[in-house]
Amino acid sequence: MLARSMVFLFLCAVGLVAGAAADGTVSLSEGKKSARVCGSCHGPKGIARVESYPSLAGQSAQYLAKQLRAFRDGSRTDPQMSVLAKSLSDDEIVNVSAWYASLSSCK
Amino acid sequence: MLARSMVFLFLCAVGLVAGAAADGTVSLSEGKKSARVCGSCHGPKGIARVESYPSLAGQSAQYLAKQLRAFRDGSRTDPQMSVLAKSLSDDEIVNVSAWYASLSSCK
Repeated sequence: MLARSMVFLFLCAVGLVAGAAADGTVSLSEGKKSARVCGSCHGPKGIARVESYPSLAGQSAQYLAKQLRAFRDGSRTDPQMSVLAKSLSDDEIVNVSAWYASLSSCK
Repeated sequence: MLARSMVFLFLCAVGLVAGAAADGTVSLSEGKKSARVCGSCHGPKGIARVESYPSLAGQSAQYLAKQLRAFRDGSRTDPQMSVLAKSLSDDEIVNVSAWYASLSSCK
């Protein structure tokens, strides 16, 4: 049981570090792809260049994913984000959130 | 008219740099005072230490103020922020937003 848990944790770690796409693991590379559409408002590296939008770089993946789910289910609304989030799958939300969390928050 | 505008701009600049409280000007020192209650979730310097909360340091004052007004008017909801924002005046929102915007976003 312990050995199985260790293997699972190892595979998760590989998925996180290498950004490899795999069911149930976080994929930074997939997150980076999904983030392309976000760059025009939130900046190509998650540092917003427009005053009215937030920077996402370095925010926790948990917080970002919660906001994306809120935009998707309508509990938080925004003219642009409400539309964009509607098309995101659970995996895409996890991956794109992990991608922004991995970026430096320094401007 | 031009001279009066110059004086107004100068006073605003003094207010911004020195953080002096004055009607209609931004006060970083007042913003810092209001931010005390925010520190337990968003960190004493605006860098959140809890995964479920966002870091505020270095976000634009415009974005932060918009979110605080949204929490205050109910268009954005959160169990804690909806309650906290209810008590904020327009000036307090401007000042506390300017305070967080003035802090370094680097962790």
